[in-house]
Amino acid sequence: MSGPGPVVALAGGVGGAKLAVGLAEALPPGALTVIVNTADDLSLHGLHISPDLDTVMYNLAGLSDPEQGWGIAGDTTGALELLGRYGGPTWFRLGDRDMATHIRRTQRLSEGGRLTEVTAELCASLNISSRVLPMTDAPVATRVQTPEGELEFQDYFVARGTRPRVTGVRFQGAEAAEAAPEALAAIREAETIVFCPSNPIVSLGPILAIREISDLLENATAPRLAVSPIIGGAALRGPAAEMLQGLGHEVSALGVARIMRKYLDGFVLDDQDADLLPSLKSLGVAGRAAPTVMTDLTTKKALAEKVLDFARSLR
Amino acid sequence: MSGPGPVVALAGGVGGAKLAVGLAEALPPGALTVIVNTADDLSLHGLHISPDLDTVMYNLAGLSDPEQGWGIAGDTTGALELLGRYGGPTWFRLGDRDMATHIRRTQRLSEGGRLTEVTAELCASLNISSRVLPMTDAPVATRVQTPEGELEFQDYFVARGTRPRVTGVRFQGAEAAEAAPEALAAIREAETIVFCPSNPIVSLGPILAIREISDLLENATAPRLAVSPIIGGAALRGPAAEMLQGLGHEVSALGVARIMRKYLDGFVLDDQDADLLPSLKSLGVAGRAAPTVMTDLTTKKALAEKVLDFARSLR
Repeated sequence: MSGPGPVVALAGGVGGAKLAVGLAEALPPGALTVIVNTADDLSLHGLHISPDLDTVMYNLAGLSDPEQGWGIAGDTTGALELLGRYGGPTWFRLGDRDMATHIRRTQRLSEGGRLTEVTAELCASLNISSRVLPMTDAPVATRVQTPEGELEFQDYFVARGTRPRVTGVRFQGAEAAEAAPEALAAIREAETIVFCPSNPIVSLGPILAIREISDLLENATAPRLAVSPIIGGAALRGPAAEMLQGLGHEVSALGVARIMRKYLDGFVLDDQDADLLPSLKSLGVAGRAAPTVMTDLTTKKALAEKVLDFARSLR
Repeated sequence: MSGPGPVVALAGGVGGAKLAVGLAEALPPGALTVIVNTADDLSLHGLHISPDLDTVMYNLAGLSDPEQGWGIAGDTTGALELLGRYGGPTWFRLGDRDMATHIRRTQRLSEGGRLTEVTAELCASLNISSRVLPMTDAPVATRVQTPEGELEFQDYFVARGTRPRVTGVRFQGAEAAEAAPEALAAIREAETIVFCPSNPIVSLGPILAIREISDLLENATAPRLAVSPIIGGAALRGPAAEMLQGLGHEVSALGVARIMRKYLDGFVLDDQDADLLPSLKSLGVAGRAAPTVMTDLTTKKALAEKVLDFARSLR
């Protein structure tokens, strides 16, 4: 049996990063490219922060905090404490080692580096053999509509702890944003495309809001699979369930598959949602049930191997 | 006996910061203004670093590392370690809490704040009752001529550990630099002017290279005193002795007094140099001997009181 060839995974933050780690483990070095949401990016303390890129990067480098899934394990917070004393915002938790990433990124961007290039440099320094690519080098910003008004994503997500009810979402700048050429080339060359179990609205949604990426994914001949971020009607973490509900979607693996229908050949849902397989079939999407809860490297790699095996069967 | 009125101290890094702490302790709150050398400033990791301002500020805030005299006591270095892994320079040691100062300063400068304003904000956040003023808001950079070529100051001072022989010094930008209006106003209002025991060449030299400051100090009617940074022919720390020698000056308290002659009414030298008092007198500068080695708050305050007492006698 031949190898899976180049694999492209599309990811947001923690959930996406977990499957990315599994795929990197299951594939030959260099076979994986992860295209990451950047619509959560923000500027704080004058620094350019890319939370999803960092989460994927730290996870692939084995640096990430295993408990919270983001940030760097064992990091200190001296800089943030003094920044707070200077009057800076402290609601977005930035560790000291983490701060180095934002400082370096900001410096290199100010020197004219594209985010794609700067991310590649950071990953090389961390000895990451997979490629990590931002969906675009252009600024795109997720705005969340709530009864309290339209909020910046991190204001909704971190500062307000996802408590406001979500009535709408838009991706400011997405229409004008060109995809990075590296991301487009990776999708064109991919022999397998995997949508990680990330929030379909605010993690995968912004990536799919980039027209060039959306067009390529819609018309790709490589098998395209998603792993459901919803298990038994709830998200393992984050506000995906509340968002789906607020936007009028069914809060289930099936609801996610419906939203992503035009990009999908196959859909992996959790064993406990196996009763949805017939409905998936009537949606015209091949389904497979698997244990999708990833708690350690073994379960991450096992899920990745299931996904890659499923992809082979669809080719 | 009336109080000393407003006092202006001129300072570089560690030695100057020590006497500034003593003066702040000896004077009523708000009476002290410290005008600080900024020709050592540098840009690293895209951040604006002002080593002498920070040393004075951290010392006045009681935050500084009592052993090394600069930096923040007990600081961690996680950010610098990862910046190094990203390929950034690590020869200039920056702690994590310290990093917050540079991040905040850089942000506020990029927003259009003047260095004088930004420094005032930082000091207010650290509850410093004295005023700390940069000598200018304009860029001035000390360049050190050596047999190895002309070096940036921190390259000479930190990276090369002051090992190269100094054959010349220039202050790039000083001629064009205007003094900050706050610094000029402070000197005009001062009833006592104190040159701290800082390096006369590269700490006080750049301040005196600002024409407007130099003119005001030369013509001030307030008593002007200096404390010798040279004791028994050597500097307590730093390359002052080697620099004086390299530039053809006598390496002694008297040599320093000669260089600063036109700015001085009184000169405080260490008890062990009391034999130089007659030579000072023939130079036309009032002299006084005192214990000038500052090892703790008590000795800092005691020296400050000696200096202020001496100033009263010259008024």
